[in-house]
Amino acid sequence: MLELYDKTKTLEMRKKLIGQSCRLFFSEDPIKIVRARGQYLYDENGVEYLDCISNVQHVGHCHPLVTKAAAAQMELLNANSRFLHDNIVHYATRLAATLPPKLSVFYFVNSGSEANDLALRLARQHTQNEDVVVLDHAYHGHLTSLIDISPYKFRKLGRQKEWVHVAPLPDTYRGEFRETHPDPAQAYADTVKEVIDQVHSKGRKVAAFFAESLPSVGGQIIMPYGYCSKVAEYVHAVGGVYVADEVQTGFGRVGSHYWAFQLQGEAFCPDIVTMGKPMGNGHPLACVVTTAEIAKAFTDNGVEYFNTFGGNPVSCAVGLAVLDVIEKENLMANALRVGGHLKELLTELQSRHAMMGDVRGVGLFLGFELVKDQTERTPATEEAAHMVKKERQICVSTDGPWESVVKFKPPMCFSMVDAERVVGNIDEILFHEVTVIKSTSCRSRNIW
Amino acid sequence: MLELYDKTKTLEMRKKLIGQSCRLFFSEDPIKIVRARGQYLYDENGVEYLDCISNVQHVGHCHPLVTKAAAAQMELLNANSRFLHDNIVHYATRLAATLPPKLSVFYFVNSGSEANDLALRLARQHTQNEDVVVLDHAYHGHLTSLIDISPYKFRKLGRQKEWVHVAPLPDTYRGEFRETHPDPAQAYADTVKEVIDQVHSKGRKVAAFFAESLPSVGGQIIMPYGYCSKVAEYVHAVGGVYVADEVQTGFGRVGSHYWAFQLQGEAFCPDIVTMGKPMGNGHPLACVVTTAEIAKAFTDNGVEYFNTFGGNPVSCAVGLAVLDVIEKENLMANALRVGGHLKELLTELQSRHAMMGDVRGVGLFLGFELVKDQTERTPATEEAAHMVKKERQICVSTDGPWESVVKFKPPMCFSMVDAERVVGNIDEILFHEVTVIKSTSCRSRNIW
Repeated sequence: MLELYDKTKTLEMRKKLIGQSCRLFFSEDPIKIVRARGQYLYDENGVEYLDCISNVQHVGHCHPLVTKAAAAQMELLNANSRFLHDNIVHYATRLAATLPPKLSVFYFVNSGSEANDLALRLARQHTQNEDVVVLDHAYHGHLTSLIDISPYKFRKLGRQKEWVHVAPLPDTYRGEFRETHPDPAQAYADTVKEVIDQVHSKGRKVAAFFAESLPSVGGQIIMPYGYCSKVAEYVHAVGGVYVADEVQTGFGRVGSHYWAFQLQGEAFCPDIVTMGKPMGNGHPLACVVTTAEIAKAFTDNGVEYFNTFGGNPVSCAVGLAVLDVIEKENLMANALRVGGHLKELLTELQSRHAMMGDVRGVGLFLGFELVKDQTERTPATEEAAHMVKKERQICVSTDGPWESVVKFKPPMCFSMVDAERVVGNIDEILFHEVTVIKSTSCRSRNIW
Repeated sequence: MLELYDKTKTLEMRKKLIGQSCRLFFSEDPIKIVRARGQYLYDENGVEYLDCISNVQHVGHCHPLVTKAAAAQMELLNANSRFLHDNIVHYATRLAATLPPKLSVFYFVNSGSEANDLALRLARQHTQNEDVVVLDHAYHGHLTSLIDISPYKFRKLGRQKEWVHVAPLPDTYRGEFRETHPDPAQAYADTVKEVIDQVHSKGRKVAAFFAESLPSVGGQIIMPYGYCSKVAEYVHAVGGVYVADEVQTGFGRVGSHYWAFQLQGEAFCPDIVTMGKPMGNGHPLACVVTTAEIAKAFTDNGVEYFNTFGGNPVSCAVGLAVLDVIEKENLMANALRVGGHLKELLTELQSRHAMMGDVRGVGLFLGFELVKDQTERTPATEEAAHMVKKERQICVSTDGPWESVVKFKPPMCFSMVDAERVVGNIDEILFHEVTVIKSTSCRSRNIW
């Protein structure tokens, strides 16, 4: 059934029954979506929305092969992983084939948050250290331990744990070291080294450097090439490990590689990688992979790790179907081709619109900055918010410290036509809407 | 497909690819299960196993109505809860109907661990206090924050956080106040008050008392009637909240009530309840419900709570199907009837076997203690382990501080015939196996 209640009733029930910390898109006038297919969403009136942001529905909303695999396995068995089953080992084998050989031991869990929390436990158990170095503006999940290591969250709550240390985001557009710097990778890696040195000067010890391979909430940041290897070197030198959070960026989204950390070259390999969102195409499925050595240290503490639903046969069947679809439908090649075209079209807009700042990204992980001024790079926060709201039938959203980065992380079946449609739309808005706003900036808050 | 690899190969792959902290049942010779239905599991050779322990597969393994509901919704839509959707509000309404009116605001998550972590965040935000009082031997989940409040785990790791305080398990069979005590509920509640007083004397403040409504890992404990109301009174008096962990005990398992905390009478209502395991019959689905007041405090901190998969239309459709089956198949009445019969049969064994200690439980949440001696109540740990291993085709397991409690928490479709079969089997083992062991106790470790 598509609808049980009319939209007004749904909204009324939602406000009463669901914690309001769980926010709605367009909270003043939210969208009710009743069905979806591929990269398209449909509301209760059949209006179509182009989805540029659902990275979870990686191979497309409601992919029939994923549904079929889930239903077939649900009919057979969905017991826990204390019983032997082929799906979990087969799935681990398939995932291992996409990773460097060193990353060979898997823990299946239900969400990116569970994965990041386990990564933290593994790092601490292995190193016997407590402290964590994270990047500014990072978000690693909604759990107590992860709010603690997410500056994006803990700054809003006005508290920072003594074991958490923040290094600058290696942002070559807005950060201290920009595109004109001779070696931003080295310069930003050195800022991490400084943080580590400060930690040690306090008599504390680093368990992990924890970072998204492409910082997303931080504003779709592409780390300068060589940065991760250098950071890993510094972290290893003090006995810590490198945790790559690939929850948003994995499974071929960057097009050229299966994992975003691989953009840093073959010389770089994290000690722990976490995966999540796209892994089950919407089914709660996530994972931690690490080295035999770190896994052994965790086993050696003598305490069982039992995750009730983690790695069950249905979750693994869903995960396997997602891998199959990525392969069969050449979705990595599509991400490269369509993402490349989208980036090109967005870059062209720079010459026509003064507000188009940096355009960046790889594959179907893209973003562009709206700026009030190209030279000063003043974030155009309100203008970005206006753009998101203006054309509701094209779902985009903003991120970055000033919410001035419009981001794209659509289902991987996003097409050339979709790319052209969305850029045409942005072009239109920049011509007719945002420029008007710019010239009447004193009234802007009232207008939007 | 039932099998991709033969069992030897599966086991070999498992050892290599999956973290060994994730343990297998009968690790020396694990069972490979390839399909299941109702309360029966089947291995790769078609051998049938009677499942007495899978409380997750609440309405029976692979229930067709649950599969059908999941597949139907997967075909339509599985977006996140930032879009309005009817399933989440409809499901919350259905759950609310089973709860006291005060518990009216829901947060949907993916596991009992995620639920308990969120409960902790809610309690702390609302009370602005940090400390937690838990029961001895408790287990609340695998996350960093929950290992910290689980004596069952943190004692093994040899560490206890300064903000965690342990009260005695209100166990009237083994604890300080037993069945002969005139008022064990008051006596045990007073031990919690003592802990709270100690916390306050250190200048600390209690955010929450956190307890399973029927402590499970603690040994299938039935709390004395009146205990929870008293504890809630003491906790409220110092500004804390009462969190009832119903992850193992909810959804009608106790037969007479939908939630185990309701066994404590209508006067008692927790401030926060967490649900999990049986909620999605194996699908990763869990929930926190709380009062409007606590939810408001959490909203008022201004920080969004976003759980990527939590409350998605598919998870909610699965949850709704589980509620439907419980109702349509009268599974609560079945739990009362079959659980009552099973308890009666186990109690009869006490008169014939000196090793049968306490038999306790409600509905299909049951356990019995094996003791070396009825008067001293010496836990018969090895004998309990032997019983579990002896008859592998009947899956039971042990719990309790000495692993001497054999527990039952089968799918709710467990039948009278199943109950008779399992008790007949236990009777047999007690006659022919465990008594032999008892008389040759000096050699026992070698024998088994």
